[in-house]
Amino acid sequence: MSLIVTGTLGIDSVETPTGSAERVPGGSAAYFCAAASAQGPVRLVGVVGGDWPEEHHAALRGFEGIDLSGLERREDSSTFAWGGRYLENMNERETLFTELGVLEEAPPSIPDSFVDSELVFLANSHPAVQKSFLEQFARRRLSVVDSMDLWINIARPELDEVISAVDGVLLNDSEVQQLTGIGNPYSAAREILQMGPSFVIVKKGEHGAVLVHRDGTVVVPAFPVPLEGVVDPTGAGDSFAGGFMGYLERTGRLDFEALRAALGWGTVTASFTLERFGLEGLRGLDLPRLEDRFDQLVRMTRLT
Amino acid sequence: MSLIVTGTLGIDSVETPTGSAERVPGGSAAYFCAAASAQGPVRLVGVVGGDWPEEHHAALRGFEGIDLSGLERREDSSTFAWGGRYLENMNERETLFTELGVLEEAPPSIPDSFVDSELVFLANSHPAVQKSFLEQFARRRLSVVDSMDLWINIARPELDEVISAVDGVLLNDSEVQQLTGIGNPYSAAREILQMGPSFVIVKKGEHGAVLVHRDGTVVVPAFPVPLEGVVDPTGAGDSFAGGFMGYLERTGRLDFEALRAALGWGTVTASFTLERFGLEGLRGLDLPRLEDRFDQLVRMTRLT
Repeated sequence: MSLIVTGTLGIDSVETPTGSAERVPGGSAAYFCAAASAQGPVRLVGVVGGDWPEEHHAALRGFEGIDLSGLERREDSSTFAWGGRYLENMNERETLFTELGVLEEAPPSIPDSFVDSELVFLANSHPAVQKSFLEQFARRRLSVVDSMDLWINIARPELDEVISAVDGVLLNDSEVQQLTGIGNPYSAAREILQMGPSFVIVKKGEHGAVLVHRDGTVVVPAFPVPLEGVVDPTGAGDSFAGGFMGYLERTGRLDFEALRAALGWGTVTASFTLERFGLEGLRGLDLPRLEDRFDQLVRMTRLT
Repeated sequence: MSLIVTGTLGIDSVETPTGSAERVPGGSAAYFCAAASAQGPVRLVGVVGGDWPEEHHAALRGFEGIDLSGLERREDSSTFAWGGRYLENMNERETLFTELGVLEEAPPSIPDSFVDSELVFLANSHPAVQKSFLEQFARRRLSVVDSMDLWINIARPELDEVISAVDGVLLNDSEVQQLTGIGNPYSAAREILQMGPSFVIVKKGEHGAVLVHRDGTVVVPAFPVPLEGVVDPTGAGDSFAGGFMGYLERTGRLDFEALRAALGWGTVTASFTLERFGLEGLRGLDLPRLEDRFDQLVRMTRLT
């Protein structure tokens, strides 16, 4: 099944308690693609400005399996740029600056060769843009949307619309609480199911993730990377999504049991992202290395 | 295998955002016993004062399988009493009062008929007292100690001694961090293994628990009781311990695979405690009801 992601490409500057990275390639779609490509082909739709460095383009090309024909470059615009700083425990971060640049313009167009995509991941961007992307994939078999607190605050009607139109919703625990007013993530997720989707995935950072599906519930812990091994949490959520959707693409299955396993594949994929700055933790990642951690995760979560 | 618990019996007064309970039976050993008795017999060693109400004694007798011959009553002393208030999210609580009473006197003595106990749980009390209890069980095959921040602060050498002498340590996440200075629970637990024990269980409240054993690691989420179903979290940790040790007693197994399953049985046992004030959630609890939630937990945590 053909997998596509729409979302942001950006230039990130990150400070952590132990180091920093200046103007590295980032953005939700970049992490998603790099992560998904460890399991199979993935199509990218995104837009950058004239300042997008050739080396960043080369970095994406370095991940075998990413189809970059939907990466639009606008010479007179500037690329989305983000700067952030992580606090001591790596769980909290503060945004130092956000330069929207090209994200304030019209969204990129989707190449004709991409409109037959069957697995659609709408990485974080304005929900109205996500909705317009979604409608162009007439042959979609499974669509999942990610969002953030900003859109819950300033674009709630549009967000509700896109949530009603997709099969799955991916949010972190504070976002599901914000969206529903319900503190318990299971109850909050069930409330979101009432809006239309078949499943909700609640990301809980170091505490793992929960899949609440019409057919059942699955809970997975985070893969235990020691804190001293956590270099940069940026993009972990998008990498999780890439590993999750990449598994569905690779196996061609969309049933509840497939989503169950995909939750584990998303989890172990994200664990590699944490271990290096930017996309570097995902570089060279292949199926055997993913499978090794997946098997460890299965052993670790088995009760009988 | 004969299971014994040493610990406190108390009179608890609890306020939560949705209700309150005045002077109900409580204490670490009471919760442990009530929880373990759902799976089989358990021996209790503890001490109360002359103010221990007959109805509280009857409440303990109401749990079939608790051997109360080690419950010592001192007519001229007063029972340990504790009052606490839970905050809105039920995760944090403040202590309103603590009256140590009989806990400031000599510890209770262990009946001759109890000294052959094979499974020993040292519920929270002063580590020097725990150590003196432990040494009296010459035929012990597995011993586990629980503790708290207070003893880490004021009785660290004694606590280190008892930790070095037991097979297992049960602490919550903030306590393992306090004990080791290490924020990551896996790394902190491995540090504690260096002190002597074969395993450490880190309780993470709503985020479940982690077993770090010399033979491997197991992670279990909390059983998802909806927040509106959480009436009183008091005693959940001791109930977890009771369900954990009760499983070992029932099956007669002490290997890593048995501890793995026991982690699940502890988890589901604690979920019943949360649903009522005091010991009431555990009343009438039997193997079929525990097994039903255990099976749900297994389905929920399975990745393949």
